[in-house]
Amino acid sequence: MSRFFSNRLSSLVPYIPGEQPKDTKYIKLNTNESPFKPTQKVAKAVEKQAGLLQLYCDPECSDLVIKMSEVFGVGKENILMTNGSDEALNFAFMAFCGEETSIVFPDITYGFYPVFAELNNIKFEQIPLKDNFSICVDDYISVNKNIVIANPNAPTGIYLSLHEIEKIVVSNPDNVVIIDEAYIDFSGESAVKLTNKYDNLLVVGTFSKSRCMAGARLGFAIGNEKLINDLNTIKYSTNPYNVNRLTQSAGLAVLEENEYYMEKCREICNNREWTKSELKKLGFCMTDSTANFIFVSHGKIGGEDLYFALKNRGILVRHFSSEKIKNYNRITIGTKEQMEILIKTIKNILSKH
Amino acid sequence: MSRFFSNRLSSLVPYIPGEQPKDTKYIKLNTNESPFKPTQKVAKAVEKQAGLLQLYCDPECSDLVIKMSEVFGVGKENILMTNGSDEALNFAFMAFCGEETSIVFPDITYGFYPVFAELNNIKFEQIPLKDNFSICVDDYISVNKNIVIANPNAPTGIYLSLHEIEKIVVSNPDNVVIIDEAYIDFSGESAVKLTNKYDNLLVVGTFSKSRCMAGARLGFAIGNEKLINDLNTIKYSTNPYNVNRLTQSAGLAVLEENEYYMEKCREICNNREWTKSELKKLGFCMTDSTANFIFVSHGKIGGEDLYFALKNRGILVRHFSSEKIKNYNRITIGTKEQMEILIKTIKNILSKH
Repeated sequence: MSRFFSNRLSSLVPYIPGEQPKDTKYIKLNTNESPFKPTQKVAKAVEKQAGLLQLYCDPECSDLVIKMSEVFGVGKENILMTNGSDEALNFAFMAFCGEETSIVFPDITYGFYPVFAELNNIKFEQIPLKDNFSICVDDYISVNKNIVIANPNAPTGIYLSLHEIEKIVVSNPDNVVIIDEAYIDFSGESAVKLTNKYDNLLVVGTFSKSRCMAGARLGFAIGNEKLINDLNTIKYSTNPYNVNRLTQSAGLAVLEENEYYMEKCREICNNREWTKSELKKLGFCMTDSTANFIFVSHGKIGGEDLYFALKNRGILVRHFSSEKIKNYNRITIGTKEQMEILIKTIKNILSKH
Repeated sequence: MSRFFSNRLSSLVPYIPGEQPKDTKYIKLNTNESPFKPTQKVAKAVEKQAGLLQLYCDPECSDLVIKMSEVFGVGKENILMTNGSDEALNFAFMAFCGEETSIVFPDITYGFYPVFAELNNIKFEQIPLKDNFSICVDDYISVNKNIVIANPNAPTGIYLSLHEIEKIVVSNPDNVVIIDEAYIDFSGESAVKLTNKYDNLLVVGTFSKSRCMAGARLGFAIGNEKLINDLNTIKYSTNPYNVNRLTQSAGLAVLEENEYYMEKCREICNNREWTKSELKKLGFCMTDSTANFIFVSHGKIGGEDLYFALKNRGILVRHFSSEKIKNYNRITIGTKEQMEILIKTIKNILSKH
């Protein structure tokens, strides 16, 4: 830390992203990326835009927003595009929280929420998950604070029904409820359809997982026009050209073949269910994940030990050191072939324990 | 504004970017873009990366930072890459200013500085330029506040010598001096060479102007390792994957042909001097701009009138409504052909006044 660093932020602990090895020798199951490449249409779109890079991108992302509006069935005025969904989340923390308004979220969830809160000087409360790692909906009824819930939650993958989400939204009419749907396309129904009914519901999404574009950084928020206007006030006070020209065109190309990407999601869900059943046969405990990852532990080998054993054998998964989940690993679902190698490798590891 | 918007930010006035018309019918001289496209090498680089978009980008931008280090002659630990230089500036405001540390900058300069200050709840003071629109260096000596100076300044294009910058840096040893060098490649010597001498100097730059990549969003900060570490603390608490995969590869491709882009800068400088001399013949007043834009006024036609007259004739320039500069327009320097059309059009406009 330099002697110039802000006193207020001096105890800020940044988010630690999953390992991003620069070589490709690993089967990479640690950051919930898709195992599938985007199609050639994306390559053609970005190549074309490369010849226009001298010009600023459209700060309104107009073409992309028009297509988003069609795919998600909401008005253009209900959409904000962002530099990854992290930016959408950070903007929402900045816009709707503050000295007067704190925020609550589960104790086990996306690790960036407490960081955004600390960064923006926002008081927050972490509500413990139940012993089975599920969210207790009653804990969020009439809390009179802003709420952020990842649905399905990470790293558990457990999904709250739309009915449960709606109960939370209805019972906190004077606060914003943010539903972070990074993994929704592998899971249940999206809360987007509730956004025209409730002015206090903001849904955040990303192209990183189900649309195979983690490297392009494209996220979005969908909600009531006034909420979106507020997020735009933050965006135009931070980085008006937040989504670059290449990413805008890639996002548009992906949405034009949306059905292809949704088909790939179904393939990943099939691989997930197969992997779960194989791991159960091997004695693993797991949550009922509906995401593109599973969250598993085994009585015979500790979470960190399994992480290192897999890494030594060329498979990267994600281990979190926090006490409550230290026996678990979060494993991204890849291709069927990758999952077969995973199972074979785990069998080999267990045979030595 | 929604009823949920943060009280503290309720009077925030966002930055208004220059017009970005979606058609290409205008000669666009309003946002200081380069009139030159990046080379084919960039198109090839981004096309290749499109096939890897399913993977997160390298949060450390390692390959790009290695090349930056070579081109700018500083250590890798002295460099942070950002999503446009706006992000680098915002991070610096967040990291080094706060309740205890306010910031000063000229009253006429890049319009985003007061917005970043308001956004982050930072007290700021705007120091008036001299009547000739130049910065009075003495006003910044021993101010004991953080300082941000665009050099050359915008929208005036006036350059402070490295000697003057150094005087300011030396006289404020307990505060960070941020030099925003968005336009330095069209101007004088860069302050980057002073960064290894002073731990309180941060230089911010961009690929948007001299490197023809406004649409890719790539900026950077160069400074003492501890300053860069602080900015990284902010980055990893905001958006660890801030620079996407496509932009990282485009930036690398541009730096690999750096001399081509610097040659284009020299061409723009030649066009600038030609345009200045033509406009002087027509009776225009102007600052001694050393950027890729000029800042001009004419006794016979008001700034806004000239703006509209040019727009009606297919040429977009930038007019600022603030009282002190409302008689002026900022005109981006384009190709020689574009500048010839500009001069011809202005002659035509003046002949009717």
